[in-house]
Amino acid sequence: MPNAEASPDLGLDFVAELGWANYQQRLVQRWQGSQHSQEQDYVAEEVPVVLVYNGISHVVMLATPTNLEDFALGFSMTEGIIQNPKEFLSARVYQRANGIEVSIKIPPERFQCLSDKGRNLTGRTGCGLCGASTLKQAIRQPAPVHSTVSVSAAQLTAALGDLQHKQSLNQLTGAIHAAAWVEPERGIVDLREDVGRHNALDKLLGLLCRTGRDVNAGFIIVTSRASYEMVQKTAFLGIGLLVAISAPTGLAIRLAEQAGVTLVGFARHDKHVIYTHPQRLTH
Amino acid sequence: MPNAEASPDLGLDFVAELGWANYQQRLVQRWQGSQHSQEQDYVAEEVPVVLVYNGISHVVMLATPTNLEDFALGFSMTEGIIQNPKEFLSARVYQRANGIEVSIKIPPERFQCLSDKGRNLTGRTGCGLCGASTLKQAIRQPAPVHSTVSVSAAQLTAALGDLQHKQSLNQLTGAIHAAAWVEPERGIVDLREDVGRHNALDKLLGLLCRTGRDVNAGFIIVTSRASYEMVQKTAFLGIGLLVAISAPTGLAIRLAEQAGVTLVGFARHDKHVIYTHPQRLTH
Repeated sequence: MPNAEASPDLGLDFVAELGWANYQQRLVQRWQGSQHSQEQDYVAEEVPVVLVYNGISHVVMLATPTNLEDFALGFSMTEGIIQNPKEFLSARVYQRANGIEVSIKIPPERFQCLSDKGRNLTGRTGCGLCGASTLKQAIRQPAPVHSTVSVSAAQLTAALGDLQHKQSLNQLTGAIHAAAWVEPERGIVDLREDVGRHNALDKLLGLLCRTGRDVNAGFIIVTSRASYEMVQKTAFLGIGLLVAISAPTGLAIRLAEQAGVTLVGFARHDKHVIYTHPQRLTH
Repeated sequence: MPNAEASPDLGLDFVAELGWANYQQRLVQRWQGSQHSQEQDYVAEEVPVVLVYNGISHVVMLATPTNLEDFALGFSMTEGIIQNPKEFLSARVYQRANGIEVSIKIPPERFQCLSDKGRNLTGRTGCGLCGASTLKQAIRQPAPVHSTVSVSAAQLTAALGDLQHKQSLNQLTGAIHAAAWVEPERGIVDLREDVGRHNALDKLLGLLCRTGRDVNAGFIIVTSRASYEMVQKTAFLGIGLLVAISAPTGLAIRLAEQAGVTLVGFARHDKHVIYTHPQRLTH
């Protein structure tokens, strides 16, 4: 069984060595009206990825098998499993029969917290909200965000215009989400892709943690809707502005309002709608 | 604390009585270039919904708070918690401080299976794949599907053309997924909406179970991508054709191939791409 130590920049090539690729080629039947063609198409891959903390399986996510170390770090931070990136002691990636295992080491005291949460659960727990089996667990309140970032409408428009070209996997396969880190004067600085919108955001946030970016210096664009968890993950990292291509939900807006996050939706070309804390956008 | 027995047709009005609506009105700042307007907008709601089986919390999902009985029945079937709709003995909906509780009764032997699965879990389990904390649990193989449904390209095009008009919540708020049940000679017969694509599909499948529809007589259109779980849920109900507006993933295609499901993607207007088992579509 192949295995390897996760490198600081765990990318496509690395995971491809484990036998998984980010996409596959497939022969498909394409129809338009009565016109038919048989052609090679590129299809995005999704792979079950299990996150194992200190030897104990925690969660299985379907994810695009790239940047998995960033994903594991981002998930660990935004789910409150660790309190700062230094507590992410190591990550190793293994190929397993049905997917990929990311084996993570965290300090004993953090693992104890995680285990205690686990023991409080009754019955099987599940999806939608990571690990929550009760309503009380479901809604976690982030500390208020005090980001001083300021973005002009022109800077936002420029970043939106640049986004599509940088989504290399999406250009090939379609239906892949992206999360981008944008610094007003520099444009898109980092971008991560995944079939899942939460995963794309966790990968990006993990990357920001790993590279020690100043969360006051920029903002996030996501190619999806702004649901509750997207705002929650953004706020937990102390980031002040979340821009979504599509609509927000009511719950996401209320959380953004409480947490001090500027929430922007329907951001396309030079259009956007501001839902909360408009002071971080200048026009 | 208000509560009520779930009626056979648990709809918007019912849940609205519990204090939750499917959407809310909000004052927003809309910008296009330098043009600004302040206007009332409709925002889709998402609410934490906990599914409680025989008194034990199982999972919390963020969902659009309508058709929750259909959702609970569909989820219970597609997650293999019950084996047939008759085992869904009752469902009651309660308002709780942080969301909605759906309290479900299932036979003792099914509850025992669920509890056994729960006890096998180690540590906290989570999202992405409902309740799976190990790779072995993550991939469940449905029995092969033998649906005899036959659909012409013209019938598919007609249903796709009809879809948007029937997505009433999406028309109001945007970013709401739908799953539709289509019978070739009748067009769209049933449709369910939710912020989550899995939830929309579970609501639709619950409705099909509740009303006893013949799964051989029709097919499903979803307004999202075709990920693994969408094919899995379709196959578990024995439905032979899944049409997605957006792309499929590689894992979804492999499952559809193995399970005998016809998988169609990028279905818009008179265009579509067939990925597996093309025999159910005639051109």
